[in-house]
Amino acid sequence: MNWVVAVDLGGTMIKGALVNERGETLAVQEQPTQTFKGRDYVLEERLLPFIEGLIETGSREGLRARSIGLAVASPLNPWEGILYNPPNFPGWGVFPLLSYLRERLSMEIHMDNDANLFALGEWLWGAGEEKSPLVGLTLGTGIGGGVVYDHGRLWHGAHGTGGELGHITIDMDGPPCNCGNKGCLEAMASATALVRWVEGYLREGRASTLSLGANAQDIALAAQQGDPLALEGFKWIGRNLGVGLASLANTFDPQLMVLGGGLSRAGMLLLSPALEEFRRRALPLQRDSIKVKLASLGKMGGVLGAAILAFSKEGNPGKEGGRL
Amino acid sequence: MNWVVAVDLGGTMIKGALVNERGETLAVQEQPTQTFKGRDYVLEERLLPFIEGLIETGSREGLRARSIGLAVASPLNPWEGILYNPPNFPGWGVFPLLSYLRERLSMEIHMDNDANLFALGEWLWGAGEEKSPLVGLTLGTGIGGGVVYDHGRLWHGAHGTGGELGHITIDMDGPPCNCGNKGCLEAMASATALVRWVEGYLREGRASTLSLGANAQDIALAAQQGDPLALEGFKWIGRNLGVGLASLANTFDPQLMVLGGGLSRAGMLLLSPALEEFRRRALPLQRDSIKVKLASLGKMGGVLGAAILAFSKEGNPGKEGGRL
Repeated sequence: MNWVVAVDLGGTMIKGALVNERGETLAVQEQPTQTFKGRDYVLEERLLPFIEGLIETGSREGLRARSIGLAVASPLNPWEGILYNPPNFPGWGVFPLLSYLRERLSMEIHMDNDANLFALGEWLWGAGEEKSPLVGLTLGTGIGGGVVYDHGRLWHGAHGTGGELGHITIDMDGPPCNCGNKGCLEAMASATALVRWVEGYLREGRASTLSLGANAQDIALAAQQGDPLALEGFKWIGRNLGVGLASLANTFDPQLMVLGGGLSRAGMLLLSPALEEFRRRALPLQRDSIKVKLASLGKMGGVLGAAILAFSKEGNPGKEGGRL
Repeated sequence: MNWVVAVDLGGTMIKGALVNERGETLAVQEQPTQTFKGRDYVLEERLLPFIEGLIETGSREGLRARSIGLAVASPLNPWEGILYNPPNFPGWGVFPLLSYLRERLSMEIHMDNDANLFALGEWLWGAGEEKSPLVGLTLGTGIGGGVVYDHGRLWHGAHGTGGELGHITIDMDGPPCNCGNKGCLEAMASATALVRWVEGYLREGRASTLSLGANAQDIALAAQQGDPLALEGFKWIGRNLGVGLASLANTFDPQLMVLGGGLSRAGMLLLSPALEEFRRRALPLQRDSIKVKLASLGKMGGVLGAAILAFSKEGNPGKEGGRL
């Protein structure tokens, strides 16, 4: 059995594991990224030791790990491994992460955007059932997107940064987005958008069991316990999400759309208003034929997608007979 | 030199020509479709005689036309040639046009959506310069879309109806669209949207050289002559178009976006506000690297795309060395 080292470098946490061709994991681990300490610290004290630790574990266990797959929470050029001003890593600028790592590691390494690899992970080993095209969305602090087509290829576009599905406009005069635009899906259907929406009403004095400082998880809990403001908040972001899903369905005509990220753990609280709006808006063929599902790999989607990337670059399909 | 019969079946006109592998045309012709006379009439009295006429012209000229390419203004399954309730052909329902034609014609025939084939035509022989990915929009009564990727492949999605780019939402509470949704790009940036917008203000008594019943061409002419209402109308649809272009740029990260269809003949009147809004909204990498151009094949984009389709199905590249 072949193994790879697979790592997901996020703005908050670094996650990783040793992964084999069946998607089985060993030595799953997680550490804070501590981006506030700056680029050199994150690279030298966090990322490199994290990867080296996994390589060593692999050797100790006698596993033949031959390459590394890396998911990064950044717009990037996947062919050259260059990060483009990652909002989650302030001050990194345009940074050639791949060549930095290649100079320091003894193993071949490949990288891609974390939402792309989330989509790839779910496609092969998660809720995706190898259906293609598949549209994946990670609903968290922001919204990331990935498109799998032709049975395992990732849509990169001309410059490597395609699939920025959080930055489709759903309301051209809507609330401002971190990207500088207005009314992006990310500004209206992310965890951050939900928290802001609830905060706005709390400041206006709306009755609720919630108080200022509540995060998306608190809001989900309050909604499950019947808090009217929290329930209304989920209806609002759910509806917005449904508008985005309809646009993506009409654009890509996928077989399947998979929703992951922290906010997706709210389950039907989010999915039910989203599906209602999606069905109201999508073109008839798309409405009747496209499935929308919750992700099934939890926090491991990016790590497992990174493993699939590494296997595919070895010319080694991630699954018997699968073409990647 | 090889030739094909290429035809573009629109809701208003049928266009066609004999086309060779260099994109040169012979016997270009155009006829009203007369959809109001119903499906049987259009098929038996219009489309079939039109195609047969081109085949005969080909034989008479001694050209070796071996197959037919057909562009159809309808959502369709391109593999089986089934039209799905075409809004432009009322009452046709779900209709197996390809098998209908195959039973009646002696020549191999292939079909695809007209906006897809517009994009393909512009990609190879028009403004597209064989850049890929390429996003094409036809701005007319409605808005059609096509995406060319991997140097000549068309994005069809899972059910054949992908690339319905006129039906991305840009304003979730915006004006109603023919598709049943609200605030679609088509409802806010098509010729129909422009006419409706101007009519609304004319009814309110706004001063203008235009009067009720003016079409998009009249409005463009009035704008060129300085009519303030007409100018404002083009700023409005131009801005809306720019919102859509930014969403599509962030989604596909194409090399190039090409704008065709009747409304695109307004040129800078439309393009200048569209580009301004596009640049304000697209993500920095997309904004700085993606070109937006006007189509260069005029009304012949769909016909030429249909020819490329037919050549590619013959296993015959449309251009020396090109892979289709």
